[in-house]
Amino acid sequence: MDGRNKKFILELQKKPAVRRSSGLYTVDGPKMAGELDLADVENVYVTKSFLASGHAADCAELLKNVSYELIQDSEMKQISDTVSPQGILVVAKQRKTRGIGAITDGVKAPLILILETIQDPGNLGTIIRMAEAAGVTGIIMNKETVDAYSPKVVRSTMGALLRLPFVAVDDIVKAAGALAAGEYTCGEAVRIYAARLDGAVDYASVDYRGASAIMIGNEAHGLSEELSGCADQNILIPMCGATESLNAAVAASVISFEAARQRRLGM
Amino acid sequence: MDGRNKKFILELQKKPAVRRSSGLYTVDGPKMAGELDLADVENVYVTKSFLASGHAADCAELLKNVSYELIQDSEMKQISDTVSPQGILVVAKQRKTRGIGAITDGVKAPLILILETIQDPGNLGTIIRMAEAAGVTGIIMNKETVDAYSPKVVRSTMGALLRLPFVAVDDIVKAAGALAAGEYTCGEAVRIYAARLDGAVDYASVDYRGASAIMIGNEAHGLSEELSGCADQNILIPMCGATESLNAAVAASVISFEAARQRRLGM
Repeated sequence: MDGRNKKFILELQKKPAVRRSSGLYTVDGPKMAGELDLADVENVYVTKSFLASGHAADCAELLKNVSYELIQDSEMKQISDTVSPQGILVVAKQRKTRGIGAITDGVKAPLILILETIQDPGNLGTIIRMAEAAGVTGIIMNKETVDAYSPKVVRSTMGALLRLPFVAVDDIVKAAGALAAGEYTCGEAVRIYAARLDGAVDYASVDYRGASAIMIGNEAHGLSEELSGCADQNILIPMCGATESLNAAVAASVISFEAARQRRLGM
Repeated sequence: MDGRNKKFILELQKKPAVRRSSGLYTVDGPKMAGELDLADVENVYVTKSFLASGHAADCAELLKNVSYELIQDSEMKQISDTVSPQGILVVAKQRKTRGIGAITDGVKAPLILILETIQDPGNLGTIIRMAEAAGVTGIIMNKETVDAYSPKVVRSTMGALLRLPFVAVDDIVKAAGALAAGEYTCGEAVRIYAARLDGAVDYASVDYRGASAIMIGNEAHGLSEELSGCADQNILIPMCGATESLNAAVAASVISFEAARQRRLGM
């Protein structure tokens, strides 16, 4: 494995700017590697011990169809972001979601998550993973949200990153306004709900069965006033005890699964 | 600050066995330090720069009533488990929850979480934090669950660790059986629900308004067959897409807040 490649892979994992300019990212481990679209695979690095293990079966199709570079365990340790690398690392092309339209196109009553400046990679990954399970149509986030292709986010999505449409937009306020105006839903307005600690309405008394978007804000500061201004309603998750707030991923989960519940079982 | 103390504090953060034998743990940061019962405070270490900062106000009562040792920023870095220590570290006595009875005593229709072998400190911390907010009465976990007094758990509970009763038991199957038999609730049976990927019943079609316990299993392996055997019902969170499972803290949150919703708004 040559030194230039090594350096590039490390930068790809550490530097959002390198991921942005190259349009590439890294996938660690056989499970998610096995789910990659073969057309998106750029380089594959595997260790001998990985090939000898049962785990190689998780990405058999990939290994059969794409040429890979065999590297030493010690090299894998050097290029991997994790403490215990799983023996396969793929450099892949980022998926291109063609704008918000690609999320909503052809979807009746979409359920959208709007994320503002989520900073913790684990939170974003957890949100992407749970959103797919809750039946969320797609995620719109601002550019200040942590990069969805950072290794920690990728890992914690458990593959959902490859399946759930998401888009990072320059102007999240404009995007929310356009959604509310029905610009992406053939004129049907999307009801926008802002999750806030000072929300006026119990989140569970709101009807999410029509086209809906749920806005979740930054871990420390919540939603900005400007973005909240786009909301039809400020909603609140009533809390017992002395807890001051919920973790952002927990709040997103609770509201998304309430929407899923209503869509499955009625209000 | 003497070397023996330094070594002890580091061990207290790294070794569950040292926490267990001493009955002590560490609290980092002014907010949670300020919530400690003064009787539980053993040692307080603060830096000059912390005292000069506005954050000292968050634990003014503690600093007024308990003598503290002034240490250098560099020493704080050495003894703190975090990359950016907040300038105050407290060695405190662990709370003694006197068995399961102390959780259920005098509570009408308790809502209990039973955790089996949760391994990720962030997950346990998130569960403790959200459980207080959801109105959970208390948490019962097995001894194989990560230690609730480990620094990462403590931090991610955001203070809920000091308020929500919890107990780690030697025999979780026996504990669940005793709950089911009403041994802790004056003969009123507690309905036990096992969250499983092969659950037969939609979690949202179950009535949690009576005395209930929700069982959540290990991140990778779920609930054991033996513990699931104590359940009245195996429940399932229906999932869309190709997601194989939910994060344990997300699953616990979704079910706990459904119980809270029912208790607040009815089925």
